[in-house]
Amino acid sequence: MLKTKYRTHTCGELTIKNKGQQVTLCGWIQKVRKLGGMTFIDLRDRYGITQLVSQDEGAIDGFSREMVLQVEGEVIERQSKNPKINTGEVEIRISKLTVLNKSLTPPFTIEEETDGGEELRMKYRYLDLRRNNVRANLELRHRMAIETRNFLDKLQFLEVETPVLIKSTPEGARDFVVPSRMNQGEFYALPQSPQTFKQLLMVAGFDRYYQIVKCFRDEDLRGDRQPEFTQIDCEMTFVEQEDILNIFEALVKHLFKTVKNIEIPELTRMTYADAMKYYGSDKPDIRFEMKFTEMNEVVKGKGFKVFDEAGLVAGICAKGAGEYTRKQLDELTEFVKRPQVGASGLVYARYNKDGTIKSSVDKFFNEETLKGWAEAFGAEPGDLMLILAGEPHKTRKALSELRLEMGSQLGLRDKTKFACHWVIDFPMLEWNEEGKRWHAMHHPFTAPKPEDMDKLVSDPGSVRANAYDLVINGVEIGGGSIRIHNKELQARVFDILGFTKEDAQYQFGFLMNAFEYGAPPHGGLAFGFDRLCALFGGADAIRDFIAFPKNNSGRDVMIDSPSIISPEQLKELGIAIK
Amino acid sequence: MLKTKYRTHTCGELTIKNKGQQVTLCGWIQKVRKLGGMTFIDLRDRYGITQLVSQDEGAIDGFSREMVLQVEGEVIERQSKNPKINTGEVEIRISKLTVLNKSLTPPFTIEEETDGGEELRMKYRYLDLRRNNVRANLELRHRMAIETRNFLDKLQFLEVETPVLIKSTPEGARDFVVPSRMNQGEFYALPQSPQTFKQLLMVAGFDRYYQIVKCFRDEDLRGDRQPEFTQIDCEMTFVEQEDILNIFEALVKHLFKTVKNIEIPELTRMTYADAMKYYGSDKPDIRFEMKFTEMNEVVKGKGFKVFDEAGLVAGICAKGAGEYTRKQLDELTEFVKRPQVGASGLVYARYNKDGTIKSSVDKFFNEETLKGWAEAFGAEPGDLMLILAGEPHKTRKALSELRLEMGSQLGLRDKTKFACHWVIDFPMLEWNEEGKRWHAMHHPFTAPKPEDMDKLVSDPGSVRANAYDLVINGVEIGGGSIRIHNKELQARVFDILGFTKEDAQYQFGFLMNAFEYGAPPHGGLAFGFDRLCALFGGADAIRDFIAFPKNNSGRDVMIDSPSIISPEQLKELGIAIK
Repeated sequence: MLKTKYRTHTCGELTIKNKGQQVTLCGWIQKVRKLGGMTFIDLRDRYGITQLVSQDEGAIDGFSREMVLQVEGEVIERQSKNPKINTGEVEIRISKLTVLNKSLTPPFTIEEETDGGEELRMKYRYLDLRRNNVRANLELRHRMAIETRNFLDKLQFLEVETPVLIKSTPEGARDFVVPSRMNQGEFYALPQSPQTFKQLLMVAGFDRYYQIVKCFRDEDLRGDRQPEFTQIDCEMTFVEQEDILNIFEALVKHLFKTVKNIEIPELTRMTYADAMKYYGSDKPDIRFEMKFTEMNEVVKGKGFKVFDEAGLVAGICAKGAGEYTRKQLDELTEFVKRPQVGASGLVYARYNKDGTIKSSVDKFFNEETLKGWAEAFGAEPGDLMLILAGEPHKTRKALSELRLEMGSQLGLRDKTKFACHWVIDFPMLEWNEEGKRWHAMHHPFTAPKPEDMDKLVSDPGSVRANAYDLVINGVEIGGGSIRIHNKELQARVFDILGFTKEDAQYQFGFLMNAFEYGAPPHGGLAFGFDRLCALFGGADAIRDFIAFPKNNSGRDVMIDSPSIISPEQLKELGIAIK
Repeated sequence: MLKTKYRTHTCGELTIKNKGQQVTLCGWIQKVRKLGGMTFIDLRDRYGITQLVSQDEGAIDGFSREMVLQVEGEVIERQSKNPKINTGEVEIRISKLTVLNKSLTPPFTIEEETDGGEELRMKYRYLDLRRNNVRANLELRHRMAIETRNFLDKLQFLEVETPVLIKSTPEGARDFVVPSRMNQGEFYALPQSPQTFKQLLMVAGFDRYYQIVKCFRDEDLRGDRQPEFTQIDCEMTFVEQEDILNIFEALVKHLFKTVKNIEIPELTRMTYADAMKYYGSDKPDIRFEMKFTEMNEVVKGKGFKVFDEAGLVAGICAKGAGEYTRKQLDELTEFVKRPQVGASGLVYARYNKDGTIKSSVDKFFNEETLKGWAEAFGAEPGDLMLILAGEPHKTRKALSELRLEMGSQLGLRDKTKFACHWVIDFPMLEWNEEGKRWHAMHHPFTAPKPEDMDKLVSDPGSVRANAYDLVINGVEIGGGSIRIHNKELQARVFDILGFTKEDAQYQFGFLMNAFEYGAPPHGGLAFGFDRLCALFGGADAIRDFIAFPKNNSGRDVMIDSPSIISPEQLKELGIAIK
């Protein structure tokens, strides 16, 4: 199947069954060595490595790694077999060797563990991609895309391409814009998501839509963000939240089964309120328990000012960490005091194996009170209780960080284990202190839960939406919602979000108009495809799952982009650089 | 499978087998009518139409087409069956009717034959997409994408996403550019194709790559062009032209078989030289023969100045058109004299059924000479010979147009018949009279044929490339070439194309550098996916196969884009409108 005019086989397929055959292979020199008058070459292609052998020591003079060879010869049985690779029982006795191309010495080694730093590897990304593990990441990505498409195709989802040159809307993140030459002074924008288009497809009666689609955000690229990223984007008609959760739970299971051969159990569901209460996060990592215990009732009024003045005192029980040293505990205290975590201090209580409890606040709490704590925590001898106090929201956030840190320290966050669940019942709105206005928590097209509709004006903050997130191992993979399909409700929501009537009409008039012509109930979701691939690949960085990523300044250092353009181009576009 | 909380079945699936079942359907009102005290509703969704019936005439007061309904009822057998549709033997006796959404009267009828004009339908594209034939086009597109992907996946092609934010290169068409906020004064460009990236993937050893990918060209949008369009883009390593033609011939056959259930015969191959000689076009429509006959040898020196002074006298034989009237022949003369066709006149010779030949140049050519013409043409009684004369290149072009026109007039261009073939051996370069320099006929990365390599400097115009186009029914679906994989050769070609060393290095240095690190022989092609879909759908316009197309001014009239952006956005980007 992979036979071409250049080769009869790939470097990954010959086995003892091919013994005696005359074959032609092509590939790159992985390694050359001489041994006892013999010359050996490891020839590599995407499919594997095959050993070549020659009795002519001169045959490879001047050969170096990453040269491209075509070799003809006979498949023979190896003297010393390598059971680790498919082709390990055979080698090729070289009868003809052709150099198809030379290679300079690569700036870093083409090995899974390379000596090249990030910047260098990005500049020579085409060499970095030769490394088996990097290529495997992109093979995984391909496989996931194929499996996603075939799964959704079977369920009658249509992949429809939505436009890339669309309209700029100030809501949400910053848009990338594209000056229009034919309409000077006007701009297209690149989509942050196909949201409005997929809703229009539902109005059009397409019933089930999906797309694996590039999206764009001109944001400052902290950590692991990319200006262009890929989503699995879906929308369905005549559905309730339950339908969507069921179908996409099935997709997640299908991907784990077909791509990783892992059977995952039914996805649990957690309300946003519970996620915040028990994990301090809307994307809890539930590979491990370690839920929050709220302690206001058992710690107040004992004269410990920190607790007495706190809006919330809450803690976690780290199973089996009772023998943490003083040094380790000091490090944890340093950890929670980091600005990113934001706690002012850490209280601990060690439940010793001998049954005694020793805390950092013994002055204020006697052993009996501490036993009461242990009971609240469900702690047993050998466990460590860690407690934070302060303003409730900040405390939950800090305790969430501490929980994840303890999970890591205790080895509870194994990258080969997967805990998937839904977080549901998100609030529809969140108050933006800076802008002094309500923001849509998901986006402005999300419908309130029917039963909360009457609070939309009286108590907007308490209105929940049929909005949901898929969380795997503490990573938000994506989410969605049931959408508004009624013009009046959409107009009211824009009003609550602080849009003037004119702004709403100018930006989203086409959608509200569409709602007047028989818009059906609909909803959907989007998964971050780069992130999902990284997670399946057991990696933290999405960058390794993108063929040609950009760096933190949004630059592609390989092609050296962005770059200046010519004065003629600027003139044609009717723009100038300030 | 399509059951949801809102419906038990779709409007396309109930048959007599479901008789007696209680069902719930959702959909749009296609039609309402009252008849003999009964009320009938045709309820439509993507999957079909089901008839609803009620004995309560008042049940549908105020109902109008395109309203969204949910209906519960029993499947019963129809009195008068409709054998044309799946569901034609049954109807639903309504027990409960819920209006899910109202609809204003649509601005045009939602029927295959609509009364809406182009501009109106584009403004309300979400309603236009409700028409069965428009939706069918996009369903066809989805099916073609799925089949393409699965075919290539089986052959180990990896789908790899290449970046959308890349670097502007002045070669080729005009780029759309994207100002960079983080790198002010610099711009990304949107890709006209992933050409260099796919070549880098080959350098990276990916062996076989494909992508169904959006590409962008900021060109004036005459006729049927779109600023954003989609390609099936492929590249392979360790291949010769033969390998690529074979695999993509198999893809084309696979698509015809799986999508249209048509078995197409082996694709013929025609050299570019023959295509120009016999059809005057590099994309001949070979659904019909009507090859050019060159007549210089038989017409010169008879005193007819037009022929005597012409560089080329050539004609076609229109089988069975011998009875064309004077009026029809005059119209053909008008046709060839149009500026787009460009001939100065038309000579014809009718081979009458009685064996006589009557020409428009009887003054210069006697019957015996005309018999000689007929022989050259292979004409028989009842045929019509049409002859043009002039500068060879212009004459061929005009005769090609005349040939297509005659093919159409004689009903030889049936949209349900498909003639697919390869045009091969394209010249590598073409002389650009305006710029007084050589242009790459395909693109600057195309390799010369090894046997023509020595003419690269001495006679560049005669150098052929291993470049090929797929032509179906006279439409160029796409093409490709074997690429250069050697830095020195690439540099020489840039030099021939008029690049300074500095320009070549600035624009394509990354690619030439990559060629120094073991670049393998490789080649590939790209098919225009929009065009391929239109062809499969039997349509001329790609616009009907794109969900949200732009008009000839590059505008999306539905969302009203492009549009102005805010002064703050401009300021952040460091640009100004001139």
